[in-house]
Amino acid sequence: MASTGNEGGNNSISAYGHARSTVSGEPLDPEDVVKMNAYFQASMYLCLGMLYLRDNPLLKEPLKLEHVKARLLGHWGSDAGQSFTWIHMNRLIKKYDLDVLFVSGPGHDAPAILSQSYLEGVYSEVYPDKSEDIQGMQRFFRQFSFPGGIGSHATPETPGSIHEGGELGYSISHAFGTVFDHPNLITLTVVGDGEAETGPLATSWHSTKFLNPCTDGAVLPVLHLNGYKIKNPTILARISHDELSSLLVGYGWTPFFIEGSDLDSMHQAMAATLEKCVLDIKKYQEEARKFIGAFRPRWPMIVLRTPKGWTAPRKVDGRLLEGFWRAHQIPITDVATNPKHLKLLETWMKSYKPEELFDKDGKLAPQLKALPPRGTSRMSANPTGNGGLLRRPLNLPDFRGYALRDIDQGVSIRGNMVNMSKFLRDTISKNMTSFRVFGPDETESNKLSEIYKAATEGRVMEMLSEHTCEGWLEGYILSGRHGLLNTYEAFVHVIDSMVNQHCKWIERCLEVEWRAKVASLNILITATVWRQDHNGFTHQDPGFLDVVANKSPEVVRIYLPPDGNTLLSVTDHCLRSVNYVNVIVADKQDHLQYLGMDKAIVHCTKGLGIWDWASNYQGQDPHVVIACCGDVPTHEALAATAILREHLSDLKIRFVNVMDLFRLISETNHPHGISDQQWKAIFTEDKPIIFNFHSYPWLIHRLTYKRPGQNNLHVRGYREKGNIDTPFALAMRNRTDRYSLAIDTIDLIDFPRNTTSHVREKLINIQLAAKMETYNSGVDPEYIRSWTWPYPKK
Amino acid sequence: MASTGNEGGNNSISAYGHARSTVSGEPLDPEDVVKMNAYFQASMYLCLGMLYLRDNPLLKEPLKLEHVKARLLGHWGSDAGQSFTWIHMNRLIKKYDLDVLFVSGPGHDAPAILSQSYLEGVYSEVYPDKSEDIQGMQRFFRQFSFPGGIGSHATPETPGSIHEGGELGYSISHAFGTVFDHPNLITLTVVGDGEAETGPLATSWHSTKFLNPCTDGAVLPVLHLNGYKIKNPTILARISHDELSSLLVGYGWTPFFIEGSDLDSMHQAMAATLEKCVLDIKKYQEEARKFIGAFRPRWPMIVLRTPKGWTAPRKVDGRLLEGFWRAHQIPITDVATNPKHLKLLETWMKSYKPEELFDKDGKLAPQLKALPPRGTSRMSANPTGNGGLLRRPLNLPDFRGYALRDIDQGVSIRGNMVNMSKFLRDTISKNMTSFRVFGPDETESNKLSEIYKAATEGRVMEMLSEHTCEGWLEGYILSGRHGLLNTYEAFVHVIDSMVNQHCKWIERCLEVEWRAKVASLNILITATVWRQDHNGFTHQDPGFLDVVANKSPEVVRIYLPPDGNTLLSVTDHCLRSVNYVNVIVADKQDHLQYLGMDKAIVHCTKGLGIWDWASNYQGQDPHVVIACCGDVPTHEALAATAILREHLSDLKIRFVNVMDLFRLISETNHPHGISDQQWKAIFTEDKPIIFNFHSYPWLIHRLTYKRPGQNNLHVRGYREKGNIDTPFALAMRNRTDRYSLAIDTIDLIDFPRNTTSHVREKLINIQLAAKMETYNSGVDPEYIRSWTWPYPKK
Repeated sequence: MASTGNEGGNNSISAYGHARSTVSGEPLDPEDVVKMNAYFQASMYLCLGMLYLRDNPLLKEPLKLEHVKARLLGHWGSDAGQSFTWIHMNRLIKKYDLDVLFVSGPGHDAPAILSQSYLEGVYSEVYPDKSEDIQGMQRFFRQFSFPGGIGSHATPETPGSIHEGGELGYSISHAFGTVFDHPNLITLTVVGDGEAETGPLATSWHSTKFLNPCTDGAVLPVLHLNGYKIKNPTILARISHDELSSLLVGYGWTPFFIEGSDLDSMHQAMAATLEKCVLDIKKYQEEARKFIGAFRPRWPMIVLRTPKGWTAPRKVDGRLLEGFWRAHQIPITDVATNPKHLKLLETWMKSYKPEELFDKDGKLAPQLKALPPRGTSRMSANPTGNGGLLRRPLNLPDFRGYALRDIDQGVSIRGNMVNMSKFLRDTISKNMTSFRVFGPDETESNKLSEIYKAATEGRVMEMLSEHTCEGWLEGYILSGRHGLLNTYEAFVHVIDSMVNQHCKWIERCLEVEWRAKVASLNILITATVWRQDHNGFTHQDPGFLDVVANKSPEVVRIYLPPDGNTLLSVTDHCLRSVNYVNVIVADKQDHLQYLGMDKAIVHCTKGLGIWDWASNYQGQDPHVVIACCGDVPTHEALAATAILREHLSDLKIRFVNVMDLFRLISETNHPHGISDQQWKAIFTEDKPIIFNFHSYPWLIHRLTYKRPGQNNLHVRGYREKGNIDTPFALAMRNRTDRYSLAIDTIDLIDFPRNTTSHVREKLINIQLAAKMETYNSGVDPEYIRSWTWPYPKK
Repeated sequence: MASTGNEGGNNSISAYGHARSTVSGEPLDPEDVVKMNAYFQASMYLCLGMLYLRDNPLLKEPLKLEHVKARLLGHWGSDAGQSFTWIHMNRLIKKYDLDVLFVSGPGHDAPAILSQSYLEGVYSEVYPDKSEDIQGMQRFFRQFSFPGGIGSHATPETPGSIHEGGELGYSISHAFGTVFDHPNLITLTVVGDGEAETGPLATSWHSTKFLNPCTDGAVLPVLHLNGYKIKNPTILARISHDELSSLLVGYGWTPFFIEGSDLDSMHQAMAATLEKCVLDIKKYQEEARKFIGAFRPRWPMIVLRTPKGWTAPRKVDGRLLEGFWRAHQIPITDVATNPKHLKLLETWMKSYKPEELFDKDGKLAPQLKALPPRGTSRMSANPTGNGGLLRRPLNLPDFRGYALRDIDQGVSIRGNMVNMSKFLRDTISKNMTSFRVFGPDETESNKLSEIYKAATEGRVMEMLSEHTCEGWLEGYILSGRHGLLNTYEAFVHVIDSMVNQHCKWIERCLEVEWRAKVASLNILITATVWRQDHNGFTHQDPGFLDVVANKSPEVVRIYLPPDGNTLLSVTDHCLRSVNYVNVIVADKQDHLQYLGMDKAIVHCTKGLGIWDWASNYQGQDPHVVIACCGDVPTHEALAATAILREHLSDLKIRFVNVMDLFRLISETNHPHGISDQQWKAIFTEDKPIIFNFHSYPWLIHRLTYKRPGQNNLHVRGYREKGNIDTPFALAMRNRTDRYSLAIDTIDLIDFPRNTTSHVREKLINIQLAAKMETYNSGVDPEYIRSWTWPYPKK
């Protein structure tokens, strides 16, 4: 915007001066202002300490270079605004006995959050070596952004945090996730004006439309207008007051503005405004709960405009610092080389008067210590911020009761989602305050509509924003509940980056002792690549599995159940698990069924296995292993097996199905991995393996890297070949159809050419005829569509 | 929303009845209304024809099942609204000689667009077999959503389309991309109310802040409130009129509403409103251009509320069709099994009176044929819709002039971006209407700030939304210009799915004869994983390369220049190329330099090669190949080489650097691939190769699959291990640091244990000492930070 230079809004809105606010009133006694301001200064002092000091934490000695960290890392820009907000909520928590969680959108300004946690004593309780004394303070400062220490964001190590803020855009959706089904919770959420420009944040303001004031809590956003991002001015800080107000009203909120820099008046304005918001929230909730039932109020929110880097020196060497983009990260960067700046830093830090805030041992002065609430009322100790503590196992119906019955292996054709939908419906019914299903308006399309029957209380959350759905689900899980996202396979890439971030969060949580494990994040991928033929090429991309497979083996699981009963069994397993991202891939259309429930459970437990009924090697060495992973690939691989047996009666085939993708990997690389010994028992070490896979073939090569006989492995999968097509035509383009598989198998086996060449020829002709019929009629030939396994079961 | 049941807005806003509109007036003569409505009916008839018919296109015979496609695919929901909008713009194009491109947000309703293209004759010009007669119409119907035919979205095969709409959310950002530096262009953009819920769309409304009315054209959005997505009601159709109006005003627009279903009055309302919008646009542009210079008007836009599936039967068998979600896709699905419904379809189609619209040969009636504009004024023939036609090669400064000079190989330390920034600055200056740089507010952080010097006219587009930046860039390129996106590596995953879609678009374009090639989409990935140590774990993910590598080899290129001169050379190459997605990975910090410009050009031309000056095998067989790809990995690999040579003087090392990632692949799989013969000449077929890679190691295994000696290849790379760390500590965690590489090399070479074990021991100790120094001081040891290549050059 700076660069286009044609911003038409009112550029002159100032963050400076006496407070200007929508809400009037001065609820604080002058002595309260003094105390709150001292507490605020203590927080600012601690923030600077974290950014700069490795020693001399209370500046009792003159500040020398040896006290300063060699590498200065961290953010100062919104520290003041966030601490300011936190402190004012403390007052109201005590006054009204509130239950409040704090979400820091600009989480890279972690010093604000960390300082509050330290001031209210939680940090020292959780990390006893960061004690409330001078030595503890020194350790607290030193560890920040220091190797072996903690990061500069609101990472999992941060008490009270469920939102790191490393990647921007998810604070509001995460916050809503925490308050669904937590009727007493208020999640106070600071949204940075940089973050507010992201798409995910921009649409997440609409979350109010999905909040039930009877049974859900409330989100209280504080849009913090700092004015600048890393370099450029922010959009929302530059548009006119009227436009911004209109935007927020349009999103469904009632914005209350507070603007200024003068501390005394800002304290009064914030106190009055925050109290007004809290009381409005309580009023709306009471109206809904006692009188009129669910309705959508225009919930209150705050727009807080303060200078970027508020309370820093206005200028350094004549160049703007406070109120400008230079205050974004380390405010004075050259203290190591510029002694004047070192001195300036010392003067600045001392201007907060540490000697009045902390006693000589580094203990917070008693009148300040008395300010925050106690126990779990402290925001950094709110149990929701360590949601695993609140998690109770789901009350799951017995999935066996939903079995697809009377399965004739390879013959019955059913919809995989039919009973899955009922299982989820009843899971919802039995867990009406702790389980929700999320999806971008595809629940019906994905044949899960049965669950609507249990959906009278907002248990199915649908908005056409994968980002918002995923954000809600993450917030819901991280605050102690359970859930599942269902989405089209091609478009799950929309949330690649969010899922990455969640994986990183839960992986890091494993190393934080006091973090209790949360429920797994379950993603049901359906409307898969192989049945997006009618939507064409844009809807074909199974690469989400590659993204997930790059994450730590500690936290990711990928399942491709071949049919309905395995889908039920694995879903039950996923809903019981903790601290994973479980990805289940299962198509929504009608498909061949392979396993009755008992066999499905065994297969799921093993994760992969030989299907004897589909094999004919009968104890002998097979000539070839035909393996498959995924529902459609299994169907085609089975059909290829039948074709081969029909035309090459001497061919001994072992048929293998892989359900749990990480079984393929070595046991040393993933907890689900199998040993080379087990591998050989299934795949052999010297026979050709033709492997029909759901996704891009490379993933199988990667997972089977260095397996015995890896050079015998020939993987077929999606090769980025597609257009508007029938299912068979799409498979043919990618050489995953039954004929291509059979032909490729013939090319691999060690049979004399003269016994196979005429078969090969014949299959090519049959394939060609099928192709022509497809392209003529617009549908696949009946003998392909209704094909079933022709052999008796063993 | 249906499921929460607590929507507080006004639910009763009806899309039915006589038109209600913000703008009054009845600009059309009654006979104009009759004609426009007939033209509209012709369009609706063609839409149904595409959805249903394979024969009997004009229904001259009674409709029989054999005339109907066996597989019914496609969308009806917004066809009417989109056609209606198109037709009214036709009138204004003629009246005011406008230059208008149409972007269809709900691109899956392609029948609307296709029917317009057919009616105005463009379709038959482009595809002569789809002629303007009964046979052509039959082919035109049959091919739609038919194997071997065209898709059901506004795919590249669609004349006038630059936006498929397969994935939702990008219509507005694409549209803005087309009008930047096209001062006469108006891009009329229909936004679906489903799409409007996505994050990318929600924030892209802010694009007006980046539009210069003097030098850019205008986007005229039509937010089409259909009311329903696949199943659920849409948010924007359910909130109150006031809230919606407030939201759009807040976004910076002036919304004009049109609501209703009565055709005659709707035609008048749309004519009046669209004309008002066009005149306002022209007025604002004139004000800016003639008088006051750049300012930001509150640009006009339209909110069009019509029934979903408008003009379909209101009910079928007593169940709602028009105005309900059932009209989303195929409106009547069971014509094959329900003869009554087949009859109903026939009656419905005949209600449009095809016999009055088309003559007996299938030619559009002359009074209708006279309605649309002519030549390239037709929206489906607008040259911007085939931007390759408008593309002119960039006027590039000679990149050699920006060389980093006096490079002492492996000794000089410079910033890779320093001269790159100047090269881009001058590229901007020399192409002030055809080249822009885009980025999510990271241009300064990415050390490219020099380009701001050429940025007086909005040449650097920065908004903290990767989605919007990417969308603008795509639109800018697809409409015939050039550009580059710079972004942090970890967060480029935010646009995984958009880049996927763009890759698919340009791949498909290769198969559409009349499409002229557009400039490549260039993505400069910087602030890479290896220098995100101070931001911690959330900022570490180099997996975007995996996502890109899954796309078709025809359209993707990945470059990892090791230093500043190779970066310049490859950037020049990318800016000259067409029809690719070029990904360049280069860190922004100061790094060792390796190649003077002449050598850099040679290295870039080869794409990979042996660095003799860093090798010591001197014509003999090497004991080991040390390979690397990426700037930081090259630095560590080189340091490992020096360490090994220091401690094992007999060890003969070949040092290989890979700059063009796809050189690794077989020539049969990628145009940049090399033969096995070339591979062996560089990597050998029997020596151990230790390969230090920028990204996840698997990608190298995948690319080198089946290479001779692939089992000798040992890849190190990012293994998802990170925290707040120094650069060295981060490398150590992932075993990509110089000591780990040297130790691992020792384990691989075929040297007697007794000659290597003490060296191994020594290196482990040095590494440990370095680690301890790092963790103590917070910075890496000086001898690591300032390491340079100690050997004389050969």
